[in-house]
Amino acid sequence: MPTTRIVIVGGGFGGLHAAKALSNEAVDVTLIDRKNHHTFQPLLYQVALALLSPGEIASSLRHILRASRNVQIILGEAVGFDIAARQVTLSDGTALEYEYLIVAAGARHAYFGHDEWERDAPGLKTIEDAVEIRSRLLLAFEAAEREAHFTGGRAPLSFAVIGGGPTGVELAGAIADLSRRALAKDFKSIDTTQARVRLYEGASRILGAYSEDSSRKAARQLEQLGVEVCTDSLVRAVEPGRIQVRDEWIVTDVTIWATGVAPSPLAKALGVATDRSGRVLIEQDLSVPGHRELFVIGDMAALIDANGKPVPGLAAAALQQGQHAARNILSDVQGRSREPFRYVDRGSMATIGHHRAVAEFGRWHLSGIPAWLLWSVVHVFLLIGFRNRLAVMLQWIWAYVTRKGSSPLITEFQRTEKNVLK
Amino acid sequence: MPTTRIVIVGGGFGGLHAAKALSNEAVDVTLIDRKNHHTFQPLLYQVALALLSPGEIASSLRHILRASRNVQIILGEAVGFDIAARQVTLSDGTALEYEYLIVAAGARHAYFGHDEWERDAPGLKTIEDAVEIRSRLLLAFEAAEREAHFTGGRAPLSFAVIGGGPTGVELAGAIADLSRRALAKDFKSIDTTQARVRLYEGASRILGAYSEDSSRKAARQLEQLGVEVCTDSLVRAVEPGRIQVRDEWIVTDVTIWATGVAPSPLAKALGVATDRSGRVLIEQDLSVPGHRELFVIGDMAALIDANGKPVPGLAAAALQQGQHAARNILSDVQGRSREPFRYVDRGSMATIGHHRAVAEFGRWHLSGIPAWLLWSVVHVFLLIGFRNRLAVMLQWIWAYVTRKGSSPLITEFQRTEKNVLK
Repeated sequence: MPTTRIVIVGGGFGGLHAAKALSNEAVDVTLIDRKNHHTFQPLLYQVALALLSPGEIASSLRHILRASRNVQIILGEAVGFDIAARQVTLSDGTALEYEYLIVAAGARHAYFGHDEWERDAPGLKTIEDAVEIRSRLLLAFEAAEREAHFTGGRAPLSFAVIGGGPTGVELAGAIADLSRRALAKDFKSIDTTQARVRLYEGASRILGAYSEDSSRKAARQLEQLGVEVCTDSLVRAVEPGRIQVRDEWIVTDVTIWATGVAPSPLAKALGVATDRSGRVLIEQDLSVPGHRELFVIGDMAALIDANGKPVPGLAAAALQQGQHAARNILSDVQGRSREPFRYVDRGSMATIGHHRAVAEFGRWHLSGIPAWLLWSVVHVFLLIGFRNRLAVMLQWIWAYVTRKGSSPLITEFQRTEKNVLK
Repeated sequence: MPTTRIVIVGGGFGGLHAAKALSNEAVDVTLIDRKNHHTFQPLLYQVALALLSPGEIASSLRHILRASRNVQIILGEAVGFDIAARQVTLSDGTALEYEYLIVAAGARHAYFGHDEWERDAPGLKTIEDAVEIRSRLLLAFEAAEREAHFTGGRAPLSFAVIGGGPTGVELAGAIADLSRRALAKDFKSIDTTQARVRLYEGASRILGAYSEDSSRKAARQLEQLGVEVCTDSLVRAVEPGRIQVRDEWIVTDVTIWATGVAPSPLAKALGVATDRSGRVLIEQDLSVPGHRELFVIGDMAALIDANGKPVPGLAAAALQQGQHAARNILSDVQGRSREPFRYVDRGSMATIGHHRAVAEFGRWHLSGIPAWLLWSVVHVFLLIGFRNRLAVMLQWIWAYVTRKGSSPLITEFQRTEKNVLK
């Protein structure tokens, strides 16, 4: 009996957990990703701040799925779909046939129609983004030290983070920590503790998805770290070395973009109905209307779930959708009926600098050190693979005990992946 | 009283240990390096094989020297010297004045006049080289898996390492380990254990600087791992996808260059006498003849030391020379006389795959597991910084206990350092 052929596009939280849920079942699974690794996105900001190394928050997909005998992994880039013929086209022209397709290609940052801003204000979605931001931050300190060494002085460094969501809050807090604590003794010609760190949010409060209470506490904790929290401050332009906030131009050494979400271009390539922001509209079983064999999940999809609430663009939601799509496919194969998706909110957390955080679990709100401890435990256990878990935990304990901070590296890497694959 | 101004060019073993030896003395030290980190080169091959991550064998120079109050660090590139005016010129046009100068800019691989071979056969001198080689190795497996997935079959992979010195031996052994052990269960369409790993050496035996006994044992251990050791096999040409050995063309998926040494171009820029290979000829006090204020050390220098033997191009020799040059400068400052340099040979070791090695300490020769254990202990303790030491040791113990191998990542990084510095 030929087994059912399932293709999954994307090895993020949605795609990986779909593959895991289909693991060693009587189906034939092919997972396609442009990278050979799964990235634990919630800790990317720690790589950007040189607190963790890339290998500590990423695992090779083959390694994670090595025990899944029915899962094949193809390193490649999906570029198009023929939904009628049930085929996925890769960038090298080869085509993969499927009986079921799960598309989970995630999202990038949206620059409000100004993609040219990305060069001067990179976002944080991949390991490469994190290494790029790390390099910009550390080189800003190096350039200032050099200038001060040769000229005898230099204006304090200026860092801007645009977007007051969890990523922006975590970045701003960690940059303040870096300049006020971790690097304070490393530079001799400049005083890194004088660096200005500004967090810009267009709305009237940061962490808009959290309660007003948590917003206020987060803002206070950021200010204690030395971050200037600027709300009602829409950024209107980004240029090399400066940004425009309302009518004012602010000089910046490094600007980071942490707002706006645009689904992967594959959402458009599917040629099905989307919402205004380009996310694919899906049914409660997570399939595309009229295409029971085609599932779209995670940040690429828009859904009011069976609880009547919009599913948020979070790793946890993508993970649950991946598992659910897999279960619905197995239901088809095994002759059972599909179930509607219900997002289970297990709470949300954002860290603020070295040992502060805010956390919300329904009506239960935490902040400060208790929230940070909880955050640490949860994230260590969520990380994939025991080796990573152990390494991250030891590193955190070590950093916490010694308060020494890390030894930040700037490395310069060649773009070879594409060339070699051709 | 104005303090003596000392400039050090290069943060490798020689420059770093010169700076350490001058640390908190009554002199004013400026260390210049193009990178912000010191690299523990003897373990680079482990980064290339995804056994360690870059952060585990590199430490930021500022971090290492943070307690050295009299040492300033400048991230910059020395490009020229005015020996008469006692100035170093940086790539941005600024000049640094010195009373003493230590040049320790190291070496690159030499391609026997065929620099165009580097593209198809990269060498292993920096973190960036290691990440590049890692990427090529892993992508070769990925491309083969893809091809086998779509076409049903694929010739076994072919890896070539050119040069039978310690680096070549370590690389070949580790590649054999990677394909026969670490990746064996990760790929489902290809059998990675069928990969061919060939080590080419132009001379009649590998590890020419070791005893014939150790050479023979190393060759036997490599062959046990599945490496084909090809001696008397001078490589005559390197092209994309193939190399010419004697009269034969060999198809290769990845070629790595591990032979030949060329001193940094700064050796020529000094405008002083060099040997045929371009290394600066120095006096026994490590200074340049006629320039008592100018020291050249490490792989850039050629010297018959006070023991009457040529100083080898090893990390240990560069380290000792850095310390010695620093001591001679302090002798001048303190009115004592300079001492001639004597290289202290503390032995040499090369690992071969997962738990084999050869080691020589004078007449005392070791091989197999005892040599490997010794090698592990020595290298863990040589690594700079307790944090790295701890992380590397735990990782090795973990890998050894589980024999699971690591989770190799391929990452694609942008070349930003230069752009940002401008």
